[in-house]
Amino acid sequence: MPNQLTSNYFLSLDEAKEITKSIKIPIKEEIVTIENAYNRILSQDIFSKVNDPPFDNSSMDGYAVIYSDTIKATNNNPIELKIIDTIPAGKTSKNKLKSGFASKIMTGAPIPKGADSIIMIEKTKKEGDLVKLFHPSYQNYIRFKGENISKGQLILQKGTILTSQDIGLLATSGYSKISVFKKFKITIISTGDELVTPGKKLSLGEIYESNSYVLEGLVKDIFHIPIRIDIVQDSIEDLKKQLDKASINSDLIITSGGVSMGDFDIVRKIMELEGEILFWRIKIKPGSPPLFGKWNGKPIFGLPGNPASSFVVFKILIEPWLKSITNSNNNDKIIKAKLLEDIKSKPDFQIFNRVYVENNGDEMVAFTKTHQGSGNINSVTTSNGLTLLPPGVGGVKNEIIDILLI
Amino acid sequence: MPNQLTSNYFLSLDEAKEITKSIKIPIKEEIVTIENAYNRILSQDIFSKVNDPPFDNSSMDGYAVIYSDTIKATNNNPIELKIIDTIPAGKTSKNKLKSGFASKIMTGAPIPKGADSIIMIEKTKKEGDLVKLFHPSYQNYIRFKGENISKGQLILQKGTILTSQDIGLLATSGYSKISVFKKFKITIISTGDELVTPGKKLSLGEIYESNSYVLEGLVKDIFHIPIRIDIVQDSIEDLKKQLDKASINSDLIITSGGVSMGDFDIVRKIMELEGEILFWRIKIKPGSPPLFGKWNGKPIFGLPGNPASSFVVFKILIEPWLKSITNSNNNDKIIKAKLLEDIKSKPDFQIFNRVYVENNGDEMVAFTKTHQGSGNINSVTTSNGLTLLPPGVGGVKNEIIDILLI
Repeated sequence: MPNQLTSNYFLSLDEAKEITKSIKIPIKEEIVTIENAYNRILSQDIFSKVNDPPFDNSSMDGYAVIYSDTIKATNNNPIELKIIDTIPAGKTSKNKLKSGFASKIMTGAPIPKGADSIIMIEKTKKEGDLVKLFHPSYQNYIRFKGENISKGQLILQKGTILTSQDIGLLATSGYSKISVFKKFKITIISTGDELVTPGKKLSLGEIYESNSYVLEGLVKDIFHIPIRIDIVQDSIEDLKKQLDKASINSDLIITSGGVSMGDFDIVRKIMELEGEILFWRIKIKPGSPPLFGKWNGKPIFGLPGNPASSFVVFKILIEPWLKSITNSNNNDKIIKAKLLEDIKSKPDFQIFNRVYVENNGDEMVAFTKTHQGSGNINSVTTSNGLTLLPPGVGGVKNEIIDILLI
Repeated sequence: MPNQLTSNYFLSLDEAKEITKSIKIPIKEEIVTIENAYNRILSQDIFSKVNDPPFDNSSMDGYAVIYSDTIKATNNNPIELKIIDTIPAGKTSKNKLKSGFASKIMTGAPIPKGADSIIMIEKTKKEGDLVKLFHPSYQNYIRFKGENISKGQLILQKGTILTSQDIGLLATSGYSKISVFKKFKITIISTGDELVTPGKKLSLGEIYESNSYVLEGLVKDIFHIPIRIDIVQDSIEDLKKQLDKASINSDLIITSGGVSMGDFDIVRKIMELEGEILFWRIKIKPGSPPLFGKWNGKPIFGLPGNPASSFVVFKILIEPWLKSITNSNNNDKIIKAKLLEDIKSKPDFQIFNRVYVENNGDEMVAFTKTHQGSGNINSVTTSNGLTLLPPGVGGVKNEIIDILLI
């Protein structure tokens, strides 16, 4: 690879990904109760401690019976059986069911010995200690021990970001606590003399700072801990102080602004002087100027200051990298949709247009809602997807392409 | 509608939705800083306080020039201009640019008076106070005032669940604080004598309680506040005490278990005796036995105890209802996918099979990974979608249908 600082060389996105992959954030584990495991990342494979269900049980409220007793039951010629007991959920029957008898049984209660089928209550009539059956019983209303999950079965893999239903599965499998990855601490620093904190008054030439808020949310979206620093003006000394602090307090540093060709692009400058630059500039649009390297041994991403650019670089480079470190899947958010318009190509560059994907009743379609300037945060906010196109390739109206849901 | 408690009448899902819609949870608003607005729900339409950008500015590091000065510039015959000043981002130039002159300008800095175009630094060479241009300047490297957002423009609608990028847009538009809906407090009560807290030892007939953990997460997924109550055994008195407490502490009560045809289905019983039942039983599979009503004036959903059932009823009935109360969109998670297998129909019933949807490289496909028993939590955990089919209609292999992403 040519020296990027002295040439016009831009990396391909794949080259950039290779370099980020070679840098790891050290992972640590901690034990949490399942109640605190919501959206945490499993650090170990999980195997069920029990069979689910743990015993054969009824899937209906009704009667446990012997199928051969009931086979001739009809509406007009019901079969009569004698009720010997009632089995609520949570209890067991001590009796062994014999021909001519029935156990009243509730949903989830264990099938008594001797019974091989269930008749639901709606197809019966109780008269004293007798029950009339108007239909043969059903063998498929028995849920068999282990039919959902066997004891010892792998149920969730290391790297799984635990959903509500995953936590239910952990509970069902007998877990009250599990081991998860500690969250990464990620410091976010916005730089730029033109930036003003939202709510204050703008002078000519100034704009409201927004990137740090977006990046803070994007870090929360993947369940790590953002540490947002107030605006750093374009002073090398201030920036250095913040980077030093961040390198002690956090696992990763993300800056925005100051990485391009300008005289005051202090992130690039300080990294040239005192940091370790691993790459600078990628053939992507928007977001070509990002920088990646190390500061005091901690990985640092220098994102462009344009809001659409920093958003895109986070989604296509930082998020997949962080997920790869915790073994987490990042492919489940890529869907297919038909383009409703052309997308212009740029030689060698990958184009991440911000599009709105919708189900129009017949198919999934994707279109842009606003202009695609890299300074236009509204192009991100009005969209729910990014076009995934190969390098140098644009999109053609009516073509079906991959879209990353954002 | 026939009396549901004395007949076998099951509602259609649409009828059930109509009834839930008629019941509102009182909404309250509160002011939060944008830093605390992540995943909160906007309670008012938001209009931008500023133009974005607030002034014409450069989208490149380079020189602000007069286009007619540069039109003949080529690599072999560069044009020379005199540099009069440098405009960093955040500053303005006092000079009016005249023919023959250039202002060095940084990305985001205001265009000086007199200039009408930009040449990026890469196509120039600085020699003392002169700059050589090797290409005509570009008029489209000026970003015009308000080209992204106009002052007063509606940028986010009431009901929006604020994403990271939405918060960036709020910052850009000058907001430091906004008004959001107060989160609903939702009490979750699992009932059943067969239930044991995960981690304890199971006796025969017992299973681990899991629904309350799933429901707690599902409430968090839509950014309200769950209040999870430990298992309530099948005692009318205990349940009554918990319902009374919940009706004081929360905006909505969700129970699981105890709503079916069994002798010990105490949620249904207590609601018949002392509550107000608005409906019971819906033509959906899984999840047909849910009950909806009021306890001490507070809305209450009695969900079935089977884990796939309670999950499905939450996703297709409770979540859309809660979102409708806050004006929030619930349609953006419905995608199209091709079924890889048949789905069996049941007369009049809507079938919500749990499927795995994936992009196979060519198209979106959906298939079931495990058996669809309503007691099988694993059918939910191994899936990422629910089939959306009309009442009484199954699915046919290779058919493209709607899938609700879960």
